[in-house]
Amino acid sequence: MSLFEELIQKRRSVRDYDEREVSLSIIREIITDACEAPSAGNRQPWGFAVVADRDMMKRLSDESKAKLLEDMLVIKSPILRMYRGILSDAQFNVFYNAPCLVYITGPKKLHSAPADCSLAAAYFMISAALRGMGTCWVDLGAYIRDPELLEEIGIPASHRIIAPIIIGYPRKIPERPSRKKPRIFKIIE
Amino acid sequence: MSLFEELIQKRRSVRDYDEREVSLSIIREIITDACEAPSAGNRQPWGFAVVADRDMMKRLSDESKAKLLEDMLVIKSPILRMYRGILSDAQFNVFYNAPCLVYITGPKKLHSAPADCSLAAAYFMISAALRGMGTCWVDLGAYIRDPELLEEIGIPASHRIIAPIIIGYPRKIPERPSRKKPRIFKIIE
Repeated sequence: MSLFEELIQKRRSVRDYDEREVSLSIIREIITDACEAPSAGNRQPWGFAVVADRDMMKRLSDESKAKLLEDMLVIKSPILRMYRGILSDAQFNVFYNAPCLVYITGPKKLHSAPADCSLAAAYFMISAALRGMGTCWVDLGAYIRDPELLEEIGIPASHRIIAPIIIGYPRKIPERPSRKKPRIFKIIE
Repeated sequence: MSLFEELIQKRRSVRDYDEREVSLSIIREIITDACEAPSAGNRQPWGFAVVADRDMMKRLSDESKAKLLEDMLVIKSPILRMYRGILSDAQFNVFYNAPCLVYITGPKKLHSAPADCSLAAAYFMISAALRGMGTCWVDLGAYIRDPELLEEIGIPASHRIIAPIIIGYPRKIPERPSRKKPRIFKIIE
């Protein structure tokens, strides 16, 4: 099996984790791997905040849900609206039952930060998958705006959350969701 | 050598290519691999435009340089200003001597498109590296605004360029640029 085949087989978005906690030394190794991603001008602008405490994860989930519900009052997005039901459900935790959450952040003022941090997120998820762990980029968990809460988890005011990624050991690896045929607009040769 | 070590060793940003042209069937395979990236809601919103014609690549380089120089008149970015010298040099091709360019694009109206397409770009670059090819995300080549030129390369008005990636066979694989110590703001356990 080629590396890429192995990657495709193992890297799935995991939303159901078993009881095992994650070792923080492994999380540090995966973060180090994430920093191997390329970045514009090799600036490596990313920062990381690690939350391996379920009470704090629940607080972050609640804050993010509340802020997204507020956004829905002004942003008329049909995609956002799809989530109104679950966001209004007090029991729903956007981080599912994951034991750990890693926020990848980038400087608010840096134009390339979303791309840079997304590349780091890809490396993060791949590194985790190759170690037998599961991850999921949970965008519903990105909407943390309370300055005190941001400070509590260590994210400086100069940074914003790009990728909230949950990580743990998958109860099982989900099936690969279907893929569309690639949309190639044109080939000029 | 672990899979991730292999990846780290092989995936470098390549800016000098040998004379070999790339096979379009391999480019199609790499695009198919890129579509294995995760995306928000599994929407797979990415599109691709492939340019394997050096004259067209030069036209795109010239257009992007001109638009970036215009942007500099209004955007006071010290990072952008660093590039003024090379952008003003008529001989400088932002795509270097690469034989092929792939634009990864996403819907202008989709909030998640920059992240989705950046993840696809990571998969694209990794797939290419594992096939012995070199790539480089060349942001200086993203600033194509002439509607006729966009139409000529097949990018619909509803999409915007997220990742311009050059691809070819590296003359040599560059050294790995140094990495900073990961910036972990806080670990809450």
